[in-house]
Amino acid sequence: MKKKFRSSCLIASVLDLLGDKWSLLIVRDMLLNRKKTFKEIAASAEGIATNLLSARLKLLESLAIITKRKLSGNKKENIYLLTEKGIDLAPIIMEIVLWSDKYVREYNTEMLPYDSININKALVIEGVQKSYRAFVNEIIG
Amino acid sequence: MKKKFRSSCLIASVLDLLGDKWSLLIVRDMLLNRKKTFKEIAASAEGIATNLLSARLKLLESLAIITKRKLSGNKKENIYLLTEKGIDLAPIIMEIVLWSDKYVREYNTEMLPYDSININKALVIEGVQKSYRAFVNEIIG
Repeated sequence: MKKKFRSSCLIASVLDLLGDKWSLLIVRDMLLNRKKTFKEIAASAEGIATNLLSARLKLLESLAIITKRKLSGNKKENIYLLTEKGIDLAPIIMEIVLWSDKYVREYNTEMLPYDSININKALVIEGVQKSYRAFVNEIIG
Repeated sequence: MKKKFRSSCLIASVLDLLGDKWSLLIVRDMLLNRKKTFKEIAASAEGIATNLLSARLKLLESLAIITKRKLSGNKKENIYLLTEKGIDLAPIIMEIVLWSDKYVREYNTEMLPYDSININKALVIEGVQKSYRAFVNEIIG
């Protein structure tokens, strides 16, 4: 993966790689909604165009955030799974959810409810990550 | 601020508002580097085009993430300061820094050093926020 970075800043560098409107939503689909095929991800509510989804899956694979494989029972369909690097995006996603719950609700009145006040952040992140790892083990056996 | 959202998802809604390559960097410039004028922010290493910076400052102001004001001693220059909503982006920025330090360094060899292993995350966030609030008080008196 060759890529031009805008600066030596740690934050800018992440945005250079993943700072588009779709990459993190694909990670969300996989981590929180257990999506693992092109078809499943393409069916998400935001309606990503299939050519964009193709490009983003290639990007995420080139960054080793996801892996692509075929299962022994089905040689036709690609299965996408998050790596540990991808699973480690959970804390960023958690903080986005908390900020969103607190500040974005007033702009998007259709937003899903979220009981952010009563959660233990570290426990939720750990739970999500553990449970995704179990899902991966179940899929790849 | 009228805006079309792609879905009812809390994560997608934040990306709909701030999911571009510049908005969060402007918040970084203000929160971590104490930048407060157009000129100071425009001088950042990433080299944002002035028309883009103008547009992003307007966006951040419309979202009440920053405020624009003039100081009594200088009626010509606009001063931009983060609101509490903007200061509350610190935990998202912190998690991005930690993920970047761990996983992006291999792609951007010029990246600044960061001693993420030895930090207390909550303390760093609190320190950054407190110190920015003191800066704001100093500016607006």
